[in-house]
Amino acid sequence: MFTTILTSHLSIDAITFWLAIIATMAFAVTAVLAIAERGVDIFGVMVLGVITAVGGGTLRDVILGVEPFWVVDLVFIQVAVLSSLLAFFGRTFFTQPQVFSLMLYLDGLGAALFGLQGAMKAYEMNFGWPVGLIIMGVITAIGGGIMRDVIAGRKTLLMSTELYAIPVALGCLLLIIGLRLYPAYEVQVLLCCTLATFLMRAAAIHWDLKVPTFLVTHSRSE
Amino acid sequence: MFTTILTSHLSIDAITFWLAIIATMAFAVTAVLAIAERGVDIFGVMVLGVITAVGGGTLRDVILGVEPFWVVDLVFIQVAVLSSLLAFFGRTFFTQPQVFSLMLYLDGLGAALFGLQGAMKAYEMNFGWPVGLIIMGVITAIGGGIMRDVIAGRKTLLMSTELYAIPVALGCLLLIIGLRLYPAYEVQVLLCCTLATFLMRAAAIHWDLKVPTFLVTHSRSE
Amino acid sequence: MFTTILTSHLSIDAITFWLAIIATMAFAVTAVLAIAERGVDIFGVMVLGVITAVGGGTLRDVILGVEPFWVVDLVFIQVAVLSSLLAFFGRTFFTQPQVFSLMLYLDGLGAALFGLQGAMKAYEMNFGWPVGLIIMGVITAIGGGIMRDVIAGRKTLLMSTELYAIPVALGCLLLIIGLRLYPAYEVQVLLCCTLATFLMRAAAIHWDLKVPTFLVTHSRSE
Repeated sequence: MFTTILTSHLSIDAITFWLAIIATMAFAVTAVLAIAERGVDIFGVMVLGVITAVGGGTLRDVILGVEPFWVVDLVFIQVAVLSSLLAFFGRTFFTQPQVFSLMLYLDGLGAALFGLQGAMKAYEMNFGWPVGLIIMGVITAIGGGIMRDVIAGRKTLLMSTELYAIPVALGCLLLIIGLRLYPAYEVQVLLCCTLATFLMRAAAIHWDLKVPTFLVTHSRSE
Repeated sequence: MFTTILTSHLSIDAITFWLAIIATMAFAVTAVLAIAERGVDIFGVMVLGVITAVGGGTLRDVILGVEPFWVVDLVFIQVAVLSSLLAFFGRTFFTQPQVFSLMLYLDGLGAALFGLQGAMKAYEMNFGWPVGLIIMGVITAIGGGIMRDVIAGRKTLLMSTELYAIPVALGCLLLIIGLRLYPAYEVQVLLCCTLATFLMRAAAIHWDLKVPTFLVTHSRSE
Repeated sequence: MFTTILTSHLSIDAITFWLAIIATMAFAVTAVLAIAERGVDIFGVMVLGVITAVGGGTLRDVILGVEPFWVVDLVFIQVAVLSSLLAFFGRTFFTQPQVFSLMLYLDGLGAALFGLQGAMKAYEMNFGWPVGLIIMGVITAIGGGIMRDVIAGRKTLLMSTELYAIPVALGCLLLIIGLRLYPAYEVQVLLCCTLATFLMRAAAIHWDLKVPTFLVTHSRSE
């Protein structure tokens, strides 16, 4: 398999594969940095890193009724385990402002890549068109992170005003429109929507954009 | 599909369908009201509303190994999304004592309807008779609400002494007895048990009934 | 079925079956003792006892895409329900130091037994060799306990430095090595690895061993 990848370099599949590897790494590293404050041992770090990296895709596959994607190629599990260990021992390195910032962008790339791939998998399986694509995309992108936060006892992403899941949902909506308009150009539509999703997330990171206050519920006692 | 429903008006199937739509709405609305105090943005509101409304049935279907029920007819997802948005923007309306009370009863109707439907689905698939019916009924009725509370960081239903899941479990037990005694009258047995479950829940709401103290564990330090 | 077991006494299958029954009981009892401090009613106690006892195996089976193991033989659900009730009413008995200690060891036996059985099930289904065996083993052993803690709002096992999941993971690793070296002796390899896992867990209980501090993350503010 490794040889195949090396010989097929520069193909779309190979680029997607390597981006997925990098994104898996970023998911695991940001996961470890997020939970490290709470005092977790090295085994917990590995488990939570793996859950964050592959949990969303696993949940998607269970709902779709297919084998988890990581069984086909265990490299994603291996990358998640190694990245978690790397983040555990190299926490001082990864918490440097510039490195951490890079990780945030790579994590955003991962959310875009995995989210849109998840939506595409639902499309290919003819699962719940059109709303099902958004549901499966969002589950793939944020499912693992939510599991991690729930197990670690942290406030989950959905309870923050972070623009993280919203770009993925909008990207999946774009994908639905794109696939409806240009059904013959699946790959191109997928790439454009993934890019658009990443750019939305990158903008949110760069300008520290949040959901505006009037679209957030407020406690009655305030 | 919509035409079919309109032309088949007053049939059992049509009544069940419309009750399920109303119950889905009530699940989503009470979900949004429950989490609103914690400060959730409009996207989180939609996601948690949908999870509450269809999460339990999805978990049941995943355990049964069948396609999630909402894929067959996306109207349940649409109703959940719209109701969540309605509750988000119309919170002042829905928190009025009388409206809120009505929502509580409709939510109880939903728990009865979905719970007994869930048990019936297990029965029809010959899944784990007899205990499996109770398990699947309870999962269908409270699974979504528990997921919502876990993701939102709230104390879950199971940790309160609210009479919510117990009527569902008793209703499923009644269903088992009914199906054993009158196997030829499935529909009638299902309707009676659903009604009985709803009445138990309605009584609990009306008289504010709780699990009696001697059936609750107490902290040693008390 | 009951007769079959009685007539086949002293066979490996019968011993495994009875150990699994005892371990299911220990899982449910320790679950109830763990959550009792928080004030749970008798229904919540049964639900959380059952989730702890069969939740991990159910999650494993859902990921493997097979019917939950407890559907085939509902005795595990029945034992979990009865043990939960026993622990609810007999809490004074079970919290006696010596009885509680025995329960801890039986719970450790359960973790070893269920964990290694889970890994073996993955092996027999040719699921994700080799890493998949460790993942499925750990999920089977600790999945139910983590669900219980999440629903009960307790700090989960993964956030402690308890040596609970680590022996299971090491036992599954041993299993992989054993099956690779002696593929013709599956049963013997499985038994040895289960025993080794239990001994590791028993040692951790007996000497109160924890993960050493240098393998635990620390808060920056310390």
